Amino acid sequence: MCFEEINDSLELVFRYSWTSSDTYGFIRECELINLSKNQVDIDILDGLQNILPAGTPQAIQASASNLVDAYKWSEIDKASGIALFTIYSGITDKPEPFASMRANTVFCLGFEPSKTLLSSQQINDFYLRKPLHNQTHTRGARGAYLVNSTFKLAAKTDKTWQFVCDVEKSKYDILSLHKTLSESQNMRELINQSIRDDSNELRRIISTMDGFQLTNEELVSTHHYANVLFNGMRGGIFDKQYWIPTKDFTASVRHFNRPVYQAHEAFLNGLVKQLKFPELLKLIKQQNDANLTRLCYEFLPITFGRRHGDPSRPWNDFCIKLKDDNGKRLLNYQGNWRDIFQNWEALLFSYPEFIESVIAKFVNASTIDGYNPYRISQTGIDWETEDPKDPWSHIGYWGDHQIIYLLKLLELSNNFHPNKIRQLLHEPIFCYANVPYRIKSHKDLLNNPKDTIEYDYQVAQKIEQGVQKLGADAKLLLNEAGEVYLVNLSEKLLVPLLAKLSNFVLGGGIWLNTQRPEWNDANNALAGQGLSMVTLYYLRRYVCFLKTLFKDQNSISLSKEVALWLDNVITQFQPNRSTQFQTMSAQERFDHLEKLACCAYEYRKEVYQQGFSGVTDYNIKTINTFLSNTLSAINHSIDANKRTDGLYHAYNLMDSNQDSIQINHLQLMLEGQVAILSSGGVGPEQAIDMLNTLFDSNLYRSDQQSFMLYPDNELPNFLTKNRISPEQITNVPKLEQLLEQSGHALLICDVDGYWHFNADLINHEALVARLNALETDYGSAVTKLKQPINALYEMAFNHKKFTGRSGGMFGFEGLGSIYWHMVAKLLLAVQEIYFNALDTNCNQATCHHLGQLYYRVRQGIGFNKTPTQYGAFPTDPYSHTPKHTGAQQPGMTGQVKEEVLTRFGELGIRICHAKVHFQPNLLRIGEFTNTPKVFNYLDILGNERCLTMPSNAIAFTWIGLPILYVLSNTNTEASLNIHWRNQKDEVLTDLILSEEISCKIFMRSDEIAQITLKLNANLLFDE
Amino acid sequence: MCFEEINDSLELVFRYSWTSSDTYGFIRECELINLSKNQVDIDILDGLQNILPAGTPQAIQASASNLVDAYKWSEIDKASGIALFTIYSGITDKPEPFASMRANTVFCLGFEPSKTLLSSQQINDFYLRKPLHNQTHTRGARGAYLVNSTFKLAAKTDKTWQFVCDVEKSKYDILSLHKTLSESQNMRELINQSIRDDSNELRRIISTMDGFQLTNEELVSTHHYANVLFNGMRGGIFDKQYWIPTKDFTASVRHFNRPVYQAHEAFLNGLVKQLKFPELLKLIKQQNDANLTRLCYEFLPITFGRRHGDPSRPWNDFCIKLKDDNGKRLLNYQGNWRDIFQNWEALLFSYPEFIESVIAKFVNASTIDGYNPYRISQTGIDWETEDPKDPWSHIGYWGDHQIIYLLKLLELSNNFHPNKIRQLLHEPIFCYANVPYRIKSHKDLLNNPKDTIEYDYQVAQKIEQGVQKLGADAKLLLNEAGEVYLVNLSEKLLVPLLAKLSNFVLGGGIWLNTQRPEWNDANNALAGQGLSMVTLYYLRRYVCFLKTLFKDQNSISLSKEVALWLDNVITQFQPNRSTQFQTMSAQERFDHLEKLACCAYEYRKEVYQQGFSGVTDYNIKTINTFLSNTLSAINHSIDANKRTDGLYHAYNLMDSNQDSIQINHLQLMLEGQVAILSSGGVGPEQAIDMLNTLFDSNLYRSDQQSFMLYPDNELPNFLTKNRISPEQITNVPKLEQLLEQSGHALLICDVDGYWHFNADLINHEALVARLNALETDYGSAVTKLKQPINALYEMAFNHKKFTGRSGGMFGFEGLGSIYWHMVAKLLLAVQEIYFNALDTNCNQATCHHLGQLYYRVRQGIGFNKTPTQYGAFPTDPYSHTPKHTGAQQPGMTGQVKEEVLTRFGELGIRICHAKVHFQPNLLRIGEFTNTPKVFNYLDILGNERCLTMPSNAIAFTWIGLPILYVLSNTNTEASLNIHWRNQKDEVLTDLILSEEISCKIFMRSDEIAQITLKLNANLLFDE
Repeated sequence: MCFEEINDSLELVFRYSWTSSDTYGFIRECELINLSKNQVDIDILDGLQNILPAGTPQAIQASASNLVDAYKWSEIDKASGIALFTIYSGITDKPEPFASMRANTVFCLGFEPSKTLLSSQQINDFYLRKPLHNQTHTRGARGAYLVNSTFKLAAKTDKTWQFVCDVEKSKYDILSLHKTLSESQNMRELINQSIRDDSNELRRIISTMDGFQLTNEELVSTHHYANVLFNGMRGGIFDKQYWIPTKDFTASVRHFNRPVYQAHEAFLNGLVKQLKFPELLKLIKQQNDANLTRLCYEFLPITFGRRHGDPSRPWNDFCIKLKDDNGKRLLNYQGNWRDIFQNWEALLFSYPEFIESVIAKFVNASTIDGYNPYRISQTGIDWETEDPKDPWSHIGYWGDHQIIYLLKLLELSNNFHPNKIRQLLHEPIFCYANVPYRIKSHKDLLNNPKDTIEYDYQVAQKIEQGVQKLGADAKLLLNEAGEVYLVNLSEKLLVPLLAKLSNFVLGGGIWLNTQRPEWNDANNALAGQGLSMVTLYYLRRYVCFLKTLFKDQNSISLSKEVALWLDNVITQFQPNRSTQFQTMSAQERFDHLEKLACCAYEYRKEVYQQGFSGVTDYNIKTINTFLSNTLSAINHSIDANKRTDGLYHAYNLMDSNQDSIQINHLQLMLEGQVAILSSGGVGPEQAIDMLNTLFDSNLYRSDQQSFMLYPDNELPNFLTKNRISPEQITNVPKLEQLLEQSGHALLICDVDGYWHFNADLINHEALVARLNALETDYGSAVTKLKQPINALYEMAFNHKKFTGRSGGMFGFEGLGSIYWHMVAKLLLAVQEIYFNALDTNCNQATCHHLGQLYYRVRQGIGFNKTPTQYGAFPTDPYSHTPKHTGAQQPGMTGQVKEEVLTRFGELGIRICHAKVHFQPNLLRIGEFTNTPKVFNYLDILGNERCLTMPSNAIAFTWIGLPILYVLSNTNTEASLNIHWRNQKDEVLTDLILSEEISCKIFMRSDEIAQITLKLNANLLFDE
Repeated sequence: MCFEEINDSLELVFRYSWTSSDTYGFIRECELINLSKNQVDIDILDGLQNILPAGTPQAIQASASNLVDAYKWSEIDKASGIALFTIYSGITDKPEPFASMRANTVFCLGFEPSKTLLSSQQINDFYLRKPLHNQTHTRGARGAYLVNSTFKLAAKTDKTWQFVCDVEKSKYDILSLHKTLSESQNMRELINQSIRDDSNELRRIISTMDGFQLTNEELVSTHHYANVLFNGMRGGIFDKQYWIPTKDFTASVRHFNRPVYQAHEAFLNGLVKQLKFPELLKLIKQQNDANLTRLCYEFLPITFGRRHGDPSRPWNDFCIKLKDDNGKRLLNYQGNWRDIFQNWEALLFSYPEFIESVIAKFVNASTIDGYNPYRISQTGIDWETEDPKDPWSHIGYWGDHQIIYLLKLLELSNNFHPNKIRQLLHEPIFCYANVPYRIKSHKDLLNNPKDTIEYDYQVAQKIEQGVQKLGADAKLLLNEAGEVYLVNLSEKLLVPLLAKLSNFVLGGGIWLNTQRPEWNDANNALAGQGLSMVTLYYLRRYVCFLKTLFKDQNSISLSKEVALWLDNVITQFQPNRSTQFQTMSAQERFDHLEKLACCAYEYRKEVYQQGFSGVTDYNIKTINTFLSNTLSAINHSIDANKRTDGLYHAYNLMDSNQDSIQINHLQLMLEGQVAILSSGGVGPEQAIDMLNTLFDSNLYRSDQQSFMLYPDNELPNFLTKNRISPEQITNVPKLEQLLEQSGHALLICDVDGYWHFNADLINHEALVARLNALETDYGSAVTKLKQPINALYEMAFNHKKFTGRSGGMFGFEGLGSIYWHMVAKLLLAVQEIYFNALDTNCNQATCHHLGQLYYRVRQGIGFNKTPTQYGAFPTDPYSHTPKHTGAQQPGMTGQVKEEVLTRFGELGIRICHAKVHFQPNLLRIGEFTNTPKVFNYLDILGNERCLTMPSNAIAFTWIGLPILYVLSNTNTEASLNIHWRNQKDEVLTDLILSEEISCKIFMRSDEIAQITLKLNANLLFDE
């Protein structure tokens, strides 16, 4: 909504509504109010300009809009009065017909226009008070829809009208709309009803993700609503909770694997129309086909997600596809692999029965060499290919998120279903993605760590052919019989660990050598020379988790080649080696990496060529010892990366010679602190020190009370960059002579006698190419100077330390920017440490101090700010806040996922060993209402409900279940009331639900009508 | 220049200047004038907004400008005060450094700013009279340069200031500029001098193309100046007239052919610094290396041309590259093959000694199968490749222009150098381009005439490798020894003729079957089913010309395979066959084409695989007989395409079955009339009738007094397109049943009971795909209905007649548009017919009538109009005038070439048999000045000259020679005065120069100082 004051007596109010129904797109309502005591004569021209026609090709519009204009055809349909914006013919340069059969449409309700204009031509005439001419048809001109009307507006009255706009309507749609328009008695009411219907549908969607809460702090619950909404729009929602339309599942089996489909055709087509996922899985398992079971686990009935990923990448146009071409409801999701799982994590907190499905989707997409593809969608995986014409195109593995996002899912499963995940460790129902990238040998990697992956066109072609025949499963590793090669979850968890460990530079971190950066994009150029401590911090937590997971197992089954790789890695982490780690020389570090990397290459070479040769049993004790040894090696490296101020390095640079590796630290970064705080390696007291240091550091932006990714360093200005003193030149023998001969090709001397490299020499590669070219003209004079000139260049540009966006960009993840997802990750990390302190019975002062720091971090987040301070709608989450302007990119932030989780943490919902714990120690008393209220929500069946709340209460839903917290006076004992739908209420005095009751909640069984927690102030967080 | 009145007492004048010198880009000067009698207090904010930084990648700016913003860094250099607009780091997604070392610069001269702003942020504050804050540095924001100044402007005075802007400046440039700024006493005068210098340089350039004329009609000479300017900017100019810098030539030899270069290295490097082309050629010929001679002929010392072609194609960004990276003057041209030759044709009229060089460039780029590549440039030829990601990309041969543009060049040569061209008929110094397109067999072509060319990736790869080794000549057909295969001009002229004749559909025209249209783009979808009468009309003129050319020759040498192909084609045009042509049935037409096409395919198959197997002598008499027979076949077809109104069909549609070809005529088109009028087949009387009919036809737009390409037909509106009655559905047995089953997949019934094809079914291909998909679900019910549904579709859309832009576009060549190049072609055609009538001693009334029609066509051209009527600067040529707005795209029109030629025709300069004729019969008396004037021009040596003109005179230059026409009274005999530079004037009474004198002029020998033509009114055109 937006207001505009025209003058003292007139005011305009605009309201925009969007609908997702069939008939209308968006509605712009305008209300003109006469505030004065006199009647006013109005002559108004209102509408929309530059309306694009249906079928406008985006790329051509961006690059050649004038060409698109020439195809434009706008008309007002005489019969209906609807304005149609079309291209008369499809835009193509091929000699083939291309009928254009859709129109964008606009019509107006609410006043009788005296004139209607289809272009902006006459706007100036209106300003000049010249007479206007009706325009019902234009060709080759930009479309507009402007109506001119004159009327008298009585004193203290108003007038409202609406523009109803929609896109890509077929003739059928338009004729149907015409019919509705002509038959309807009250079109405006019909539209308002449609808006209401869609609002209700949105309420239903939000309710399925537990978006409704009612507390005394409206901003908090509104912010939660927004987080839930955007989380759903990023990753999608489960369409009908746990229900799976069997027709969709069957189609999915057919899509992925035709032989499997054919083998079970009768069974699949005989299934009832819909089944809850656990029931479906049970039936499927009875078929005794591991591949069918795999496909069932992987099937996610998700809808509503926009195509998910960084919009600066060309593929990532938003697209929320809810219906198929026939208008039928559609299950659909697609997203960047590294983005979509985060939102599912938050969603799973309301749908725990799908946790293992998402884990399956995750690990089934990981490759034999331990990485992950670029994109996933309902139809399978996808990877980047190179387009030589597009400077933005590139291939490689984004090694980031992998460990921590997988781990978070595993931890969820371990909390909700500790038995289930342990069972999966042994079930061979998982697979490998076969991305046709081939990582080169360790020698090649060292030689050029930025050019490490070959695209195997032959494999790619084979896969493409296979997809035609077998189905999308042809993108997976197949065995010799052409079937999908299956392994258990243990192997799928070990391979990424081995891949990371094989790039472990002791004391430095995990070497980024797959041509793509770790998250975050700030350091997008670190690939090659970068070492990630961030990944190592997360790896620490992963190793600890695996120790817990494998503890009580016996042997596990592994592919032979994986077992061999594991053996080799184990050798490198023997305790006798590990003691050396502290005193390790650069040479020993080089050797250690070489040994690890060569084992990995041996493994890769083997499996790239031959695949796997069978399975073997592996002793779990060996693994557990290995995990312990690894943990101690990791801990040594972590210690070595502690800064003198108590904070930790996030990334390092690797400086490798023929036989040694030196480690150079980069600057302070927020990501490193988040990762170490999440690693499990930092105790409560240390965490408090670190957080206090952080608030005093140059990462803190006091204007936004929050943290940047790295300090906003002052940069040299344009004319002081790339400046070389005359002495630096004369110090190099014979250089002056060459520069005299070679003109401006290499260096140019300015009017002040300083030298500058030629502006074409954008990097070392360009310099080398130029030197080689000069060599043909000037021979050995150049050859001898190559090394010193390269050294001069590096001195001038310091390109070895080039980290990417963090060095030369000022929006997004750039200099001065706050990247809100990282702040939210910090928030979650502090909350984890807080609960960890509670769980370990830490002293109260420490816990309280941590709680205070939690709220201090939270204080920086938008919803606590004024619109002026935030520069945007405070309750909405945004991607980033650059130094020079307000928050940017609403909803496009992983912040939403972290904050959905922290919010339930604030409310004290914790799950442990399959039981629900109510532990609201972080909840503030101020959130309790001070008057009776009514909490409106939708129940699991989708019915609108209202819950009458007393004073001093909080209400919310979780897994669709309404939960009421009521604050009693401090003397009353806390109690949990289970309101059964068909039996008497049950009162529990410890705040933990039994495994049985917890399971009913997880399963959305609807047997429980409500849970009421009566508690006293002692349990809450005392600010 | 542009004026703006601020209020009654203040006026602002803006002046823009561009310079091409090293230091400055463009200057925006602003003059503020106080017209009142009182002093005025001024508070002004002036400048430029949204200044892009240097190094902005065009594609990313177009598609993701917000991302580019994040990289922006703007600063004011404190020392110099120059504003620098840069990206702080190069924009890439690859993990590699990319230093950004250039800046766009702005500075202001002329007032002391009180505040300077680098962004638009504070503009509103200025409006609101809030205080402004100096802004000397911004990051991540769009750049601006705004200066705020307050001053008093005395009554009746003015104040002037300047913004000096430049792009892509290096640090060296900026520091040098700073030095100039700080040392200069009077910077503004320095700038003004720079502008004057550049204006003079432009005068020099225009003078080298004979752009200066002085007549009584200033608009005519200004229009000529503009035509010459834009002709030069399209095709380029000869840099130093006939002079060739031998270093450039040597570099060119090395670029094209390394072995040839190596063989003549010493000779080439020993050449003097520059030589006139004829001298160079003489020296080269003495080396006795045909390939060296070929490369010398082909070498064009051209500069100043913008990259030439339709800007709607992605490749065609304008780019006038005058200097290389080291700032040295550069020879450079590049353009679409079909565009650049036209401008060279006009240029050659001032540089006749290069005619044969351009012919060489033309024919050396034509392929063994008789077509031409897409682009040519100084570095060789280039062809389109397919990019599956780009809907605009496609391959194929643009078969257009080829015959007529080549012919125009040949005719020029025949007029200027009749002996030279005849000599070349026998010299084996020409070659074939080896474009890796492979035209399929006739059967395949018939089967799918829109998919006729295969891209031979193997050949393409081989060529690419060859270029690395041999040089750019590897793109030519090589013999077995790996050398360029050479043939004579005769063969190069016959192969395109044979290619066209092999696609000759008798009675219909030349079949367009190479996936690309003929000119003009209006019918860009005709490829496949289209037959071009236009090409046939031009072919008629070509055949007549070849008859003249070959007349007195003996035998000629031809490649054996070409000779065989010629033999086969000859058989098909025997006179006994030709008599059948009039009564030919559809079946006979099919057979005739099949025989021709199969011969061509046999030839192609052979030479694609093996190349040529040697040469053979061919009897010239056989060829001459063949040409005569062909001419009569062409004439029959032309007669068959005469419309009842006396005009001619331009394009036809070919409707071919298994064994017959039907011809369907398309609508009236201007291009057809231009072509037939140029064909030589229309006599003066018939031409008069045709032109009168044209003026009465629906091609004529009276508002612009000129002709559209085709009638501006009324089109059905959106809702009446694609509409099928219920009866049409019920008439097809079992269709209703299928439609009920298949939902909206095929057809949809609207609320009124009418049916519409689904909006996704954009063409027959889409329909076929949908039907095939439905077939899997509904089986034979669909199979049986395929044919009737296709027929219904064709009934609804009439896609067979789809011609492309002419059917659904409203700018450029679209509906209602006047395409000025075509009008200018008509003008030239009428002038040719006029002179032809004179030459053939036609009666005076007819000649006069033709002259009147010539001027009636000319009357429609912009320079005769007011700015309001033309909607643009009238003296400038523009591409097109859509129905709904003024003329569009200044300078981007082939009109300039036609009008340069017609202008010299109006002045009566004609060349015949190597002699210059003065024949000003079309010149109007009104063009003669009525007072004495001074004609300023530059002589051949580049010196400014002035020629004092008496009353009643016209002055102009041609080939750099000043020519003065003086009108005497009617009784005086006409005479030609040759003013020799070093000998006495010579007076001739017939108006023809001897071959010897003509040759001196052609050679720019500078021995003649001036020519004066004294003439009387009888010789002129009497309006």
